[in-house]
Amino acid sequence: MSKQTDFINSNKDRYITELKHFLSYPSISTNPENKKDVLECAEYIKEHLEKIGFSNVTIYPTKGHPVVYADWLNAGADKPTILIYGHYDVQPVDPLNLWTSPPFEAEIRGENIFARGSADDKGQVFIHFKALEAHLSQNGSLPVNIKLIIEGEEEIGSIHLGDFISEHKDLLNCDVVVISDTAMYSKDVPAIGYALRGLCYMQVEVTGPNRDLHSGQYGGAVDNPINALAHMISKLKDDKGKILIDGFYDDVKPLSGEEIEGFKKLPFSDEEYAKGLKVEELFGESGYTTLERTWSRPTLDCNGIWGGFTGEGAKTVLPSKAFAKISMRLVPDQDPNKTEKLFTDYVKKIAPKTVKVEVKGLHHGKGAMTPIDTKWMKAASKAMAAGFGKEPVFIREGGSIPIVLTFKEMLGADTILLGFGLPDENAHSPDEHLNLNNFQNGILTCADFYDELAKI
Amino acid sequence: MSKQTDFINSNKDRYITELKHFLSYPSISTNPENKKDVLECAEYIKEHLEKIGFSNVTIYPTKGHPVVYADWLNAGADKPTILIYGHYDVQPVDPLNLWTSPPFEAEIRGENIFARGSADDKGQVFIHFKALEAHLSQNGSLPVNIKLIIEGEEEIGSIHLGDFISEHKDLLNCDVVVISDTAMYSKDVPAIGYALRGLCYMQVEVTGPNRDLHSGQYGGAVDNPINALAHMISKLKDDKGKILIDGFYDDVKPLSGEEIEGFKKLPFSDEEYAKGLKVEELFGESGYTTLERTWSRPTLDCNGIWGGFTGEGAKTVLPSKAFAKISMRLVPDQDPNKTEKLFTDYVKKIAPKTVKVEVKGLHHGKGAMTPIDTKWMKAASKAMAAGFGKEPVFIREGGSIPIVLTFKEMLGADTILLGFGLPDENAHSPDEHLNLNNFQNGILTCADFYDELAKI
Repeated sequence: MSKQTDFINSNKDRYITELKHFLSYPSISTNPENKKDVLECAEYIKEHLEKIGFSNVTIYPTKGHPVVYADWLNAGADKPTILIYGHYDVQPVDPLNLWTSPPFEAEIRGENIFARGSADDKGQVFIHFKALEAHLSQNGSLPVNIKLIIEGEEEIGSIHLGDFISEHKDLLNCDVVVISDTAMYSKDVPAIGYALRGLCYMQVEVTGPNRDLHSGQYGGAVDNPINALAHMISKLKDDKGKILIDGFYDDVKPLSGEEIEGFKKLPFSDEEYAKGLKVEELFGESGYTTLERTWSRPTLDCNGIWGGFTGEGAKTVLPSKAFAKISMRLVPDQDPNKTEKLFTDYVKKIAPKTVKVEVKGLHHGKGAMTPIDTKWMKAASKAMAAGFGKEPVFIREGGSIPIVLTFKEMLGADTILLGFGLPDENAHSPDEHLNLNNFQNGILTCADFYDELAKI
Repeated sequence: MSKQTDFINSNKDRYITELKHFLSYPSISTNPENKKDVLECAEYIKEHLEKIGFSNVTIYPTKGHPVVYADWLNAGADKPTILIYGHYDVQPVDPLNLWTSPPFEAEIRGENIFARGSADDKGQVFIHFKALEAHLSQNGSLPVNIKLIIEGEEEIGSIHLGDFISEHKDLLNCDVVVISDTAMYSKDVPAIGYALRGLCYMQVEVTGPNRDLHSGQYGGAVDNPINALAHMISKLKDDKGKILIDGFYDDVKPLSGEEIEGFKKLPFSDEEYAKGLKVEELFGESGYTTLERTWSRPTLDCNGIWGGFTGEGAKTVLPSKAFAKISMRLVPDQDPNKTEKLFTDYVKKIAPKTVKVEVKGLHHGKGAMTPIDTKWMKAASKAMAAGFGKEPVFIREGGSIPIVLTFKEMLGADTILLGFGLPDENAHSPDEHLNLNNFQNGILTCADFYDELAKI
């Protein structure tokens, strides 16, 4: 057993105490009222990285929330340079009443730690911090050159990170990017991700009459923006889950026979999956398996809808406005800008003349795909097997980390998705949590991974 | 000029000051947090009626908000007994930011007084109070026997008034009911209403997965309750405004030729109407004029919808639940209980198996129709002509006052709808207001009406 492995095994309790503190910052990037909390969280990261042995740590302001950068580059020019990316911002917490314990007061129940950001992504960022700390404290050095970039705007589409990267290409120059912000395939199946879906997130605003009306006096006279919006949403997908937007599937390539076979080998039960979500039946584009639909087919979901009276009881209003947030997950070949235009054109086309419709894009991200047969992937696979005592599988991800494509385009570097979450850990939902065994094995994996990378 | 007319003309300013006070009570019946305000408003009415000369005033508690009853029965057994009904509760005020002045701090702008309840119904109730005061103060008596019943739950479906009436039939026994809670046909056309639509107000709750999910990880795997709800709403009405609920139109009688002709004679412009609401085109059941659609055809409107993330920005959630409030306005022959069942059955029928759907009725009211050629209607018509200097027209109402049918069924009394509002006074919307000329002419009309009734 290496020195750092020994160290990691004997510091379990301290790691949890420190993680709880990291999770206590309500760093919700989308809420203007949390701006100060986001900044304080960045400052905590700087302080912590300095404490574990990084001497070059900088908080870079952006037009939004800051980016924390750190590096340790003394491994020598013959050793690879690894860029570890993560984010310290988190999703909003509503509906708050569905949390068993307060979202920013981490609580351990069973094998899990419950808090907003535990799985996505503070917990996983902290895995790297602790793996780096183990090397630095036990060996006084790292086996490879490490750059860290921890941003504060991932949950709002990394809106200023592209500019930051383009302005700091030399600073960020690296051989490969590692991101731990995804999930293992399942509790017993560690995994390495090689593809992500893109995202095109839209908002539709429908205006009927210029003011809220009495539904008795006016009911029957004018179109109702909620009814009109519902009609329009119903025309976005058919009853078999196929998206009806003109041209939407034009750039979607069929899955390779090899991938289809690979997916089929993974343990998966529609019945168990449906049971876990307490639904009678799963639903999605017909002709595809659930893994195919969530990993390698584009989808469309309403993320929010509102209009009219939403309080207790009955208010007989014919409202002036109705709104919906609608997003599409895209496969790597689809261009989110093109999708935004297709969506907008289609919605305008199906909008009845009896209402006004405004469509705007809220955020974008292109999907990405990384080759599997590289030396980096092999190193990751070996480390994962060591950390978890089990060979990892290679999987795709239904979610989006648009920055993966930016790293490829601006730095020329591929990304390895070394995820330590689990699919049912409620990322983005109440009672988000992280399995503490995976947290601990993740630290072991990462510490080993740096060693494996040094052997390349 | 009669003594009371003279008195009314010279007390204009005081009336407005007093009305402002009445409008300052936030007596929102649907909000539990306003329970005390509703009660204080009832207490104010009692005090005020005693002040203007009613000696028998009682606040009757109900299981909800109280009913204020008062009478003056000294006109003699040969004189008719008139039951004046009104309500002192008001609609909620949201969205508050669309009010030009605070909803419970009445403000006069131009000819209008702006406040929640000004038109619906405190302002119109106050017209009767001031007409009664004029008689009592100037003549020491009223020309007819008067009973007043002012309730606090009209805006939540008069849920306890039916029981109250059935338990107090003798107390409320009368020859005719007068309600001032509707609108004139237009600013220059005073009107008497003879028909009201009924109401069936439903809530639909759609549940997909048992928790909010990450739309990336799960998008494509399970049905989305917002999309499912939108699909269901889109199946409630077709593109031509026809309601698709099985059996919905079964009890709807066609309009008589006489009524169709009567409606056609009224000044009405679709173009002007659309302009006033700032819509490009009106919309409703095809084959009917706007007046026919709003007065004498049943309609269906979404009154509210909500689900998922509704804040600023983009949250990539696949929500667990979505809700809609959906109400139908019914013509007098339609039974709201039957309609509730038809709606529920249809919604359950069209609900996909991939979601759970719950449907509940929030409130009900049957429509009503009063014969036009009675002595009561003639007296009302004469008084209206005197008060406004113009013959009134006879109209139907698109709104619902379910209690009209209760009065007919329990007391055997027809109702005269003597409305002094205007159709565009934003009842139920921000910036609700009442035209002060109509307020003043209304007081003159009512004072004269009591005299006319005494001559019958």
